[in-house]
Amino acid sequence: MAEQFVTLEKSFMKLLAEKKYQTLKDVMATMNAADIAAVFEDLDEERTPLLFRLLPKELAAEAFAELSPELQEHLIRGFSDKELHEVVSELYVDDAADLVEEMPASVVKRILAQADPEMRREINEILRYPENSAGSIMTTEYVSLRPQMTVAEAIQRIRRTGVDKETIYTCYVTEARRLLGTVSVKDLLLAPDDNTPVSEIMDGHVISVSTLTDQEEVAQMLSKYNFLALPVVDADERMVGIVTFDDAMDVLVEETTEDIEKMAGMLPSEKTYLRSTPWDLFRHRIPWLLLLMVSATFTGMIITGFESALAAQVVLTAFIPMLMDTGGNSGSQASVTVIRALSLGELELPDLPKVVWKEIQTAVLCGAALASLCFLKIMVFDRMILGNTDITVMTAFVVCLTMALTVLAAKVVGCTLPLCAKRLGFDPAVMASPFITTIVDALSLLVYFSIAKAVLF
Amino acid sequence: MAEQFVTLEKSFMKLLAEKKYQTLKDVMATMNAADIAAVFEDLDEERTPLLFRLLPKELAAEAFAELSPELQEHLIRGFSDKELHEVVSELYVDDAADLVEEMPASVVKRILAQADPEMRREINEILRYPENSAGSIMTTEYVSLRPQMTVAEAIQRIRRTGVDKETIYTCYVTEARRLLGTVSVKDLLLAPDDNTPVSEIMDGHVISVSTLTDQEEVAQMLSKYNFLALPVVDADERMVGIVTFDDAMDVLVEETTEDIEKMAGMLPSEKTYLRSTPWDLFRHRIPWLLLLMVSATFTGMIITGFESALAAQVVLTAFIPMLMDTGGNSGSQASVTVIRALSLGELELPDLPKVVWKEIQTAVLCGAALASLCFLKIMVFDRMILGNTDITVMTAFVVCLTMALTVLAAKVVGCTLPLCAKRLGFDPAVMASPFITTIVDALSLLVYFSIAKAVLF
Repeated sequence: MAEQFVTLEKSFMKLLAEKKYQTLKDVMATMNAADIAAVFEDLDEERTPLLFRLLPKELAAEAFAELSPELQEHLIRGFSDKELHEVVSELYVDDAADLVEEMPASVVKRILAQADPEMRREINEILRYPENSAGSIMTTEYVSLRPQMTVAEAIQRIRRTGVDKETIYTCYVTEARRLLGTVSVKDLLLAPDDNTPVSEIMDGHVISVSTLTDQEEVAQMLSKYNFLALPVVDADERMVGIVTFDDAMDVLVEETTEDIEKMAGMLPSEKTYLRSTPWDLFRHRIPWLLLLMVSATFTGMIITGFESALAAQVVLTAFIPMLMDTGGNSGSQASVTVIRALSLGELELPDLPKVVWKEIQTAVLCGAALASLCFLKIMVFDRMILGNTDITVMTAFVVCLTMALTVLAAKVVGCTLPLCAKRLGFDPAVMASPFITTIVDALSLLVYFSIAKAVLF
Repeated sequence: MAEQFVTLEKSFMKLLAEKKYQTLKDVMATMNAADIAAVFEDLDEERTPLLFRLLPKELAAEAFAELSPELQEHLIRGFSDKELHEVVSELYVDDAADLVEEMPASVVKRILAQADPEMRREINEILRYPENSAGSIMTTEYVSLRPQMTVAEAIQRIRRTGVDKETIYTCYVTEARRLLGTVSVKDLLLAPDDNTPVSEIMDGHVISVSTLTDQEEVAQMLSKYNFLALPVVDADERMVGIVTFDDAMDVLVEETTEDIEKMAGMLPSEKTYLRSTPWDLFRHRIPWLLLLMVSATFTGMIITGFESALAAQVVLTAFIPMLMDTGGNSGSQASVTVIRALSLGELELPDLPKVVWKEIQTAVLCGAALASLCFLKIMVFDRMILGNTDITVMTAFVVCLTMALTVLAAKVVGCTLPLCAKRLGFDPAVMASPFITTIVDALSLLVYFSIAKAVLF
């Protein structure tokens, strides 16, 4: 893929430099909207308006919808009102609503001025829904049928109205805007008799979402049921739009990226990495770094509290990183597993006792294995091979016992915190590695020094 | 969703206990295959064969395809040959191939014996492709059209053969099995003239994948182009099957879960959390824990090397956890961002210099912010409020300088390692938090003690 792309870009540059516009026009007409957008993103911004004007109308709108907000804005600023009108009127309503949401006020005004009244109304309707809700990602363009229509009439209606609709393959049977059932084009085409009324072949067990349903839940439902689209109904159970599978796929990818960013202690960002400036990255990363640095004060205080003991047994210090890291890793394994299972809907709050019990058993297995190997490592490698005679059997014992207890504490904390966060209405994803590490650090040091004090002094 | 489910399960249990089979049958006939599978998974295994027999034939096969391999095996072991034949012949070929792949040899033998010769041939064909390749997830059932057919003939053909095909909405125009173009049912339905030949309305710029293309790449292409399905061609450019969007969505979710597991230092697992035994969890988690514990030996050796210095300045020990954690967090922020961008295809190897430069700038900003706040914290909180008079301005200076340098090293290591791993053909996802932490720990301690030795002694 990537290599193909580089070649394509090079050809584009050459053709542009040689002003071979007809060739460029012919090449672009054979391309896919997504690929055209990708090439545009990599070109010098100044060149894009010229190239864009070479695209056939419909393809131009499709490619436009795939561009980054920055490039969209750049293009719009160069458009005449007529050009803007052409692009906007070819956009699907949900793409137009996305566009309006991203642009600065002055550009929005121009866009809305160039949209047909009908589209303007629909854009505004979508924009009224809260961010990340089904209403905000739905499109209001879908094929609706009446229950008493025959199969032949239904196919006629699709043929007549379908060209503007984002998906025509699932049609919605409504009466007074109430959703009665769905019928697929497949069902219509495969119906044995053209005169069968739609109501007889439709599927009346409709799964729908509300305008306020979270977009991630909508995407997961689409993925679970393998639907092409899900109908969206308002508070009065009236159908207002559909969410299509391609938008759901995008939502799944975006939401997962956000989860991953949160799990690594970052504020989620909407820009891709290459488009983010160092200042963007800084702003998204520094809050958690500061918070976690400050909270490490407690760990420091624990060490200070045991300073005199440490001064007498400096050898204990050498094992602090190993204990802290193993604890942190054990904890984040548990928390990340639980967070992912929560966001895939595999786990629910009532599963907490089951989860804790499973993690305790796992921790005992891991703790035993780690402690045994650690004991061997300390006695053979550190004491015999490195010849560190400060290390006694008792030191090794203290380290290994701490190891086992730390792993246990880490796994229990790691699996409990995300579930508790969910219970309290917070996002479980922030309860991942960095946060768990800080807690487990403090716990492991407390255990370490307490056991050391009891056993060694 | 979840609450609905619990209620449904309870009703099922009651109806089962009261032996109201007719009611159960009626209820299940109204349900979706995915929901039926979810209820089955939660029921006592013993009850499932009885319930399964109450399902209408087609729905039974659909629900069967959604079940976990464990439950599938349990059901098959209870099936008569006739029942097995009924289920297998209703399965889509790709689902049947998945089934064969998951079952133990004795069960596979029975399944293949009950499959029609045609299906057996197709299953075997799919199974010949390497795991995670497009060939292994494709289905061989699709609608193919000849270029010289008219629109009316094409619609006729879909009506006649479409009922068995997994998706009918994109049809493939082939000649001698060579793929000439695609035509959607939408194009056919909206064609102005029924007598137009298919070759005139088909899209000849076909995007296809090879049987050996990685399934993740296929899923990303489907998501990028918003296609319902992608055609799969063999080495001779002959069309052999299609990958549909619903399978692509599953692949995206699975591959991301694997990435997340790897990033948290676990071997990827195919079982869901609730289905994994503690022993499963142990086996997937212990390898990295052991490896990372052993590698912490180096960190320990660094501390031991500076033991005499530490004994003289025990106060330095108190800052070790803060320095290690901040370094680890900074590094994993960079590595996780880069890993995610790599797996979304936003970053490529040639971007390395750009990435490193961006991370250096970000590190300078983060390092400056963290070091300043840290200096303030040490002087005001640790020294004045806690009254720790061992802490001098020079100590604070050493800690803060180490902090800034550690953040810089962590960000550079964090962004470089995943890209290097990719270059060497390894999976970048393993170059995440745990691994980075271990390296950054060692680096930060080396820097810390070296600066301390130079400044304080």
